[in-house]
Amino acid sequence: MAGNSFGQLFRITTFGESHGVAIGVIIDGCPAQLDIDMDFIQSELDKRRPGQSKITTQRKESDTVQVLSGIFEGKSTGTPIALLIPNEDQRSKDYGHNVDVYRPSHADYVYDAKYGIRDHRGGGRSSARETAARVAAGAIAKLFLKQQGIEIFAHVTAVGTIEAPNLESNDLSALLQIREENIVRCADPATAHEMVEFIDAVRKDGDTVGGKISCVVKGCPAGLGEPVFDKLHADLGKAMLSINAVHGFEYGSGFAGSELRGSQHNDIPQPKAADSKVFKTTTNYAGGILGGISNGMDITFKVAFKPVATIMHNQQTINAAGEAAEIKGKGRHDPCVVPRAVVIVEAMAALVLADQFLRNKVSTL
Amino acid sequence: MAGNSFGQLFRITTFGESHGVAIGVIIDGCPAQLDIDMDFIQSELDKRRPGQSKITTQRKESDTVQVLSGIFEGKSTGTPIALLIPNEDQRSKDYGHNVDVYRPSHADYVYDAKYGIRDHRGGGRSSARETAARVAAGAIAKLFLKQQGIEIFAHVTAVGTIEAPNLESNDLSALLQIREENIVRCADPATAHEMVEFIDAVRKDGDTVGGKISCVVKGCPAGLGEPVFDKLHADLGKAMLSINAVHGFEYGSGFAGSELRGSQHNDIPQPKAADSKVFKTTTNYAGGILGGISNGMDITFKVAFKPVATIMHNQQTINAAGEAAEIKGKGRHDPCVVPRAVVIVEAMAALVLADQFLRNKVSTL
Amino acid sequence: MAGNSFGQLFRITTFGESHGVAIGVIIDGCPAQLDIDMDFIQSELDKRRPGQSKITTQRKESDTVQVLSGIFEGKSTGTPIALLIPNEDQRSKDYGHNVDVYRPSHADYVYDAKYGIRDHRGGGRSSARETAARVAAGAIAKLFLKQQGIEIFAHVTAVGTIEAPNLESNDLSALLQIREENIVRCADPATAHEMVEFIDAVRKDGDTVGGKISCVVKGCPAGLGEPVFDKLHADLGKAMLSINAVHGFEYGSGFAGSELRGSQHNDIPQPKAADSKVFKTTTNYAGGILGGISNGMDITFKVAFKPVATIMHNQQTINAAGEAAEIKGKGRHDPCVVPRAVVIVEAMAALVLADQFLRNKVSTL
Amino acid sequence: MAGNSFGQLFRITTFGESHGVAIGVIIDGCPAQLDIDMDFIQSELDKRRPGQSKITTQRKESDTVQVLSGIFEGKSTGTPIALLIPNEDQRSKDYGHNVDVYRPSHADYVYDAKYGIRDHRGGGRSSARETAARVAAGAIAKLFLKQQGIEIFAHVTAVGTIEAPNLESNDLSALLQIREENIVRCADPATAHEMVEFIDAVRKDGDTVGGKISCVVKGCPAGLGEPVFDKLHADLGKAMLSINAVHGFEYGSGFAGSELRGSQHNDIPQPKAADSKVFKTTTNYAGGILGGISNGMDITFKVAFKPVATIMHNQQTINAAGEAAEIKGKGRHDPCVVPRAVVIVEAMAALVLADQFLRNKVSTL
Repeated sequence: MAGNSFGQLFRITTFGESHGVAIGVIIDGCPAQLDIDMDFIQSELDKRRPGQSKITTQRKESDTVQVLSGIFEGKSTGTPIALLIPNEDQRSKDYGHNVDVYRPSHADYVYDAKYGIRDHRGGGRSSARETAARVAAGAIAKLFLKQQGIEIFAHVTAVGTIEAPNLESNDLSALLQIREENIVRCADPATAHEMVEFIDAVRKDGDTVGGKISCVVKGCPAGLGEPVFDKLHADLGKAMLSINAVHGFEYGSGFAGSELRGSQHNDIPQPKAADSKVFKTTTNYAGGILGGISNGMDITFKVAFKPVATIMHNQQTINAAGEAAEIKGKGRHDPCVVPRAVVIVEAMAALVLADQFLRNKVSTL
Repeated sequence: MAGNSFGQLFRITTFGESHGVAIGVIIDGCPAQLDIDMDFIQSELDKRRPGQSKITTQRKESDTVQVLSGIFEGKSTGTPIALLIPNEDQRSKDYGHNVDVYRPSHADYVYDAKYGIRDHRGGGRSSARETAARVAAGAIAKLFLKQQGIEIFAHVTAVGTIEAPNLESNDLSALLQIREENIVRCADPATAHEMVEFIDAVRKDGDTVGGKISCVVKGCPAGLGEPVFDKLHADLGKAMLSINAVHGFEYGSGFAGSELRGSQHNDIPQPKAADSKVFKTTTNYAGGILGGISNGMDITFKVAFKPVATIMHNQQTINAAGEAAEIKGKGRHDPCVVPRAVVIVEAMAALVLADQFLRNKVSTL
Repeated sequence: MAGNSFGQLFRITTFGESHGVAIGVIIDGCPAQLDIDMDFIQSELDKRRPGQSKITTQRKESDTVQVLSGIFEGKSTGTPIALLIPNEDQRSKDYGHNVDVYRPSHADYVYDAKYGIRDHRGGGRSSARETAARVAAGAIAKLFLKQQGIEIFAHVTAVGTIEAPNLESNDLSALLQIREENIVRCADPATAHEMVEFIDAVRKDGDTVGGKISCVVKGCPAGLGEPVFDKLHADLGKAMLSINAVHGFEYGSGFAGSELRGSQHNDIPQPKAADSKVFKTTTNYAGGILGGISNGMDITFKVAFKPVATIMHNQQTINAAGEAAEIKGKGRHDPCVVPRAVVIVEAMAALVLADQFLRNKVSTL
Repeated sequence: MAGNSFGQLFRITTFGESHGVAIGVIIDGCPAQLDIDMDFIQSELDKRRPGQSKITTQRKESDTVQVLSGIFEGKSTGTPIALLIPNEDQRSKDYGHNVDVYRPSHADYVYDAKYGIRDHRGGGRSSARETAARVAAGAIAKLFLKQQGIEIFAHVTAVGTIEAPNLESNDLSALLQIREENIVRCADPATAHEMVEFIDAVRKDGDTVGGKISCVVKGCPAGLGEPVFDKLHADLGKAMLSINAVHGFEYGSGFAGSELRGSQHNDIPQPKAADSKVFKTTTNYAGGILGGISNGMDITFKVAFKPVATIMHNQQTINAAGEAAEIKGKGRHDPCVVPRAVVIVEAMAALVLADQFLRNKVSTL
């Protein structure tokens, strides 16, 4: 109930503060006999790791994952998988000046209001550091989904007002390669170049900027999602909105679709070839989901991230007593969160799909 | 797990198909001793009721709610509140021609794919009729919230490309009065007039159109929302995305906020007057929520609805065998769903807030 | 959270008070395509029905079940199954004298203490009438289990100090026939006769008496139950202890087993025949469950019921003000609850097994 | 769903195998601002620790608990509390001979049947080592309850057929002192002496023996427990039955109560003194719980443990191929589990009560 668990059958529980001993995650409900590729899990964490390029925070954390339980001789055993990521760079003195001052657009005030106590050494539990645990768990979900033929790909499609064109390719491995060849993680090289230049300029201003990430899921069979409250896109939406800094979610035709007429927006089913079981429509405004249930087409959605609140400018604010205070612009933070958030978006999508995959297994006799 | 329940402590479970005997809802966890105003519940249902104006479906249902349990001498008893809404106009012969044909952009195909069986008399469980049960339950959540000083107001802010201007007023009862004076439920009379004309034209075309609903919550204390996965806006997002036809959700600065810089987007806290406990910021890009927890400012969000899939045009599609088929344009459906969806948006918001209000009661000693 | 739901994947939510309009149950998670035999459901309810013999309460209720949703053309559709049982004999004036007086060993006082409000027309939600909803849902669980080859049989094995001998037969249908040939529902005819005589004498004394019910599950495959907190016997124990008047639960060797040595108590596995997949042990002290997981042997457990609290004697007690009061012995209640509770025990066992059967479906790839 | 979590609002999730790196627990939902006494937590673990006396296993584990998160400057912060207990004595070679052989009355076979894979270095997840995590979490629940004036006391009341007399004292601290002065943890010194002699003799025989633990909860306010499925005693029963080796649970009058008449068994409420809010009955057959809800009297229950399955005798069994095999009697195990289980019973009771205490906070406005 306290909101540190996600998923019903493929269920994770995360713990840990940014400046504590460690963060970690328990995965309860991963089916037995899954091959667990630890190198893959670590490579996913490396994509979220701070300090990976000039446009990310320079905070240093190797984010090395340790297995505490649930894996035996390289396979899941059906028991809880516990993964631990020790905190290395807990330079909490950086935050000493903020003990009593509420940083603008941070969660400091609301934690005090809710709990009456706060680990003021940093963001504590509200820090995006918590998302490393999600990435580790999401990597295992990806391994499970891959075995079912389901693949997930996200990339940065906007930084500020710079938007990437729609991608034509259906070859996820090719897109993945292009994406990883630039530090902003946009699968369009020209746009990526422009984005990197812009973020670097913003960084030099001591400022930050928001952006958007688009995601596609390929190979998802029809039938995933529960019809009323746990619609597939509702679970995806919640998953994305639970990521730090996310302010918006849309799937398929999204906000733009609300401007269309039904005669434009309806996706027309195509007759099947005699030997085909695949459902296809001429367009995909539905984003692969009808009535909350996957229809077998590509699942598409987009996520909007606000600009990071920590800037290198001095700002007016208040302290815990409600008095005016000034906060100095210092510390080590990301000028733009989206390059590191790509793998978080994928991880949360993987967790939703793994969960709904298992849930669908019990929907019929 | 099968997705027909919503909420953790203030928890509802809905049941019923569009063409069955009845639909209904069980509310488990409504605190004891709440005064239950049945007239208010019915008046909320009346706002969602079909046949209420020329721009809604002409299907006739009185949607009269019956109490089966949980209320004694006008008060909640702490035991489950069961509400029943009989189905009156089950004219299922209207749908006889569609038994074997998948309506474009409807859930027919995916129900067959998921369950291997389908109540083909209508939308079954995927019908928006299910949302009447949500409105009934949401009305009780509103009564609970009102006692805590929390009020919710939604209205239509876009139909197609017609957008309402931002409203200045903070007086919800005034806005509510204006909203209810027009059949599209937009609190700006001029825009409302334009919207009604447009929807009527669309209806005459046998077509449908999408739209947007904006919502504000006033009087919410700081501290609601759980910090990691069950962030207040994540729960709101899931609630909204679970409503039929919703394709997008944003809160506070939303998608547009992702184009801003941190120095523009940060909301600056204002020093408190000596006797005030209220947290105020100069702007409210945060939409009243920081780190997933309410900060006491107005909570604001927007929801995008796709156009209704049922149109009065003939359309190409396929049948259950995968063969080409044509579907005739007939039946009784809404040209635009947003006027009736306003109260559904409010109901789902109320359910989230009631639930998080109770959850917050156990966050400290 | 308010405790009116049971089960995780095969999940029921019950509602309704003894003197309200109706009681009922929502079953969420029943797999699609299950044949629903309504006559069987009604016949199960008839076994719990009041007024069925001279040794049960003379209260009259036909307990006729109505389907509101989730069943189409005789089959489950995967959507919530809502079952309603109207209350017919709500003779609440019988209870008028008790409005302000706490009946000894009833829940009147604690409901007031917990909720500050109470439906004083009868037991309200604490009435065993609520169990009719469980029996209806349990009947559907039984239909599901039967399709998997799992059968459940319970009967009365003690009334007061009268105990039935252990039964040798493995033929459940033969036992069921014997059980239903006597009104106390004991599968040993001689003991049954003695029990009936005794209960009748107790009834004439205006008194009540407790008893025990034993249950066996046959045909359960190995693998059901989750290893740590949701052990199969822990779920069975909770299910039984949630039935009104139950004060004890034991499985396999039970309390008596705690007096034995390991060398006596260990069940020795028998070598398998070449073509057999069945696990067999020479003894079954384990009651068919090892480490919380079924091993394929018969599952056996026993449940102890206290005597019914309503007696036909005048009793001292207190009123809501804490003052001494006397309560008159009148009303219509059971002299011994176990004959009607047999089918409740079976229903709750069926709900646990159906739930754990589905849960086990997702334990491996 | 995979059964490694317990509780709804005060919720724990445990992880770890007996021969893995570590075991541990996440507590999600512990209210903020609770003083956490780490010495107390460790002292509770010391009572469960192996190797503490001649009548427990000689396996050596210091069971030193580490805090990973959720506690700041000695207080709970409202975020998940993660506790880790490294495994020190993983002498898995002791178990090498059992890789392929199913130990009688152990969970080896059912894990293979359920998961198709098993950590065969020891009991894995079925080992009672998992209960150390429960004791650590239970200690925090006890700290929470103590602040509410609720105290829990358990002790050994039977070993084999040796039974302790009923205790008269109401002074829990006196009983606790006596209990801790003997290695079997019985609060009656004479019986304790007899039990120790008997267990030592059983140990020398290479055998094991079962026993019983009784528990009392004092200071529990009226109102805890949810009325239908989550009755206080149903949750306690499930909690106890989830402990390794438990085969039976009874509360209040228990199994013996089923032999009584209502006129004997009813607890008569006593008139209250003018200034008293306390509910008292002349007897307490109810065990402090009516209709599943605490009434303010002492809560009493008893738990039966079967004899430990590992004995020092050679035993016939089968291997994974189903062939006859012999298992040698060796290893380091407890001749009787109850002395070390006393603190586990208390811990599980504390977890149930803390959870139901929080749940009760939201039952009224």
